[in-house]
Amino acid sequence: MAVEIHPTSIIHPGVELGDGCRVGAFCELGVPSPLAENDRLIIGRGAHIRSHSVFYTGSKIGDGLRTGHRVTVRENMIAGDQFQIGTLSDIQGHCSVGDHVRFHSNVHIGQGAKIGNFVFIFPYVVLTNDPTPPSEDLQGVTLEDYSIVATMSVVLPGVRVGSGALVGAMSLVKGDVPPDSIYVGNPGKVVGSTAKIKLKNGEPAYPWRRHFHRGYPDDIVRMWKAEFA
Amino acid sequence: MAVEIHPTSIIHPGVELGDGCRVGAFCELGVPSPLAENDRLIIGRGAHIRSHSVFYTGSKIGDGLRTGHRVTVRENMIAGDQFQIGTLSDIQGHCSVGDHVRFHSNVHIGQGAKIGNFVFIFPYVVLTNDPTPPSEDLQGVTLEDYSIVATMSVVLPGVRVGSGALVGAMSLVKGDVPPDSIYVGNPGKVVGSTAKIKLKNGEPAYPWRRHFHRGYPDDIVRMWKAEFA
Amino acid sequence: MAVEIHPTSIIHPGVELGDGCRVGAFCELGVPSPLAENDRLIIGRGAHIRSHSVFYTGSKIGDGLRTGHRVTVRENMIAGDQFQIGTLSDIQGHCSVGDHVRFHSNVHIGQGAKIGNFVFIFPYVVLTNDPTPPSEDLQGVTLEDYSIVATMSVVLPGVRVGSGALVGAMSLVKGDVPPDSIYVGNPGKVVGSTAKIKLKNGEPAYPWRRHFHRGYPDDIVRMWKAEFA
Repeated sequence: MAVEIHPTSIIHPGVELGDGCRVGAFCELGVPSPLAENDRLIIGRGAHIRSHSVFYTGSKIGDGLRTGHRVTVRENMIAGDQFQIGTLSDIQGHCSVGDHVRFHSNVHIGQGAKIGNFVFIFPYVVLTNDPTPPSEDLQGVTLEDYSIVATMSVVLPGVRVGSGALVGAMSLVKGDVPPDSIYVGNPGKVVGSTAKIKLKNGEPAYPWRRHFHRGYPDDIVRMWKAEFA
Repeated sequence: MAVEIHPTSIIHPGVELGDGCRVGAFCELGVPSPLAENDRLIIGRGAHIRSHSVFYTGSKIGDGLRTGHRVTVRENMIAGDQFQIGTLSDIQGHCSVGDHVRFHSNVHIGQGAKIGNFVFIFPYVVLTNDPTPPSEDLQGVTLEDYSIVATMSVVLPGVRVGSGALVGAMSLVKGDVPPDSIYVGNPGKVVGSTAKIKLKNGEPAYPWRRHFHRGYPDDIVRMWKAEFA
Repeated sequence: MAVEIHPTSIIHPGVELGDGCRVGAFCELGVPSPLAENDRLIIGRGAHIRSHSVFYTGSKIGDGLRTGHRVTVRENMIAGDQFQIGTLSDIQGHCSVGDHVRFHSNVHIGQGAKIGNFVFIFPYVVLTNDPTPPSEDLQGVTLEDYSIVATMSVVLPGVRVGSGALVGAMSLVKGDVPPDSIYVGNPGKVVGSTAKIKLKNGEPAYPWRRHFHRGYPDDIVRMWKAEFA
């Protein structure tokens, strides 16, 4: 399948785009940088990169990437398959991202972040890394599989958000969040288990893979349905 | 009056621009989408769309639109006259906006929002819609006429902000806000009536239409002056 | 040294770029405006302006400017040397900025701000100016030399943040912050002196110029080293 690149976009040397990739208007891919670990940008099959986006060299991204508009990805990000990056998101690079991760609009990922699989990050979330700004003491944030960080939350340096945990909107996450727990507030704290949250229909809202299947591959949805049958 | 489109900008089929519209550089208007209810983008007379902005199909906007730079408007927004959208604002579509609404920079409008007339939204405000993220239980936010949401506030799903109410900076709006009341904090609460807030000159600051008239049409300003004479 | 301008970028009349300036793709410099105090944009030597950035007329900036992508600078900003403006930052103009100031990504500077020398501002910080929005009672924020405002904080109108003070992440700054003090919370308050914060190695973290020297000129670093020897 052919690669489709809008004629206004700039593709630097060293960029590899898999079969069926589409690149919108006014993008710049493969920006060279002395901070990049290598002079290549590797993007898997079927990517859809929307207009005004900028990717530096040194990153490697799996199949099925989908971005909004005006996304920035700096040097040295390693990301898995089916990664979604919302409009205006700003990934500072030097980070790792698992499979099936979804960032909504305007997410800011500080260097050193380690993001698992099936993680959700909502608008205006910041993953920080400097406990004593400005300093050279960088400590990235870890988000484990299936965790969710809701809008306008800040995760402080070195914090680990456990598997399936939910950080509520506008929370300042100062300490580790245990798996499957709810963390809210500024300053934030654990306020219970995600098990107590219900959907409108009365069914449990978490783990969200019980009910939320939009856009995931059939084999994964089948597995999730079997898990909660 | 002629329409003026910068030669670098991309105008897809189905875009209708009223008399006297101006479109800045590096814009893309009428992006086709399977999510759009129709394949048109209709923008009234005298619009000024600044550089790097992106509008999808399915939206209809009245006269006098004015945008900052790098604005995004997704599918199926119905908006009134004299709409101002600040730089970097991100409207997710599937929403309605009244007349004379003003968004400052970097406002994020989730799907399902219902925004009245003469509403003000300040930078980094998020109108959410998903009470149990991620889920399909979407509940849009309602902002009634003359209401104001100050900078860095988050309005939670399904909340109604009453007519003339003021949400203070960095507030997490968890419940409905009565008309003409002040709501602040995280978690937020009603802390009084807007009637107690004064301008520097000692006059009442609210309803703001008593004193703030910059950029409104003469007939409206005359009406407001008569109302508070 | 030659000036290098990407062929896709738009340079309006009245723009002066010093020796060795580089301008990335899809930028627009010197946007004319009736709000500008003059019809010029003056940028000193060695600037590096990254892609998709927009600068209006009426501003004057010293040597060594460095910007991220998609930066906006409106009318009438006076800025010193070695100014760094992160990706997506939005400077509303009518403000002053000292030497060696660093804005990280997505900083919003309201009109009337007075920013000293060696100031750090982190992502999603808003400097406001309107105590009774919307109104014409504008009161800019003052940030004194060496002060630091951490991510997602809002500084309310007319507030002065003292020299060397640290505003913690997600703080709502309602009153003046004394020099070398720590201010945190929503609503925020002073919680102590920066002297009590240590680096990982046990050394004092503040004043940060004791230990953080990345990117500053040799003569300044030598002076700082002598100060704390």
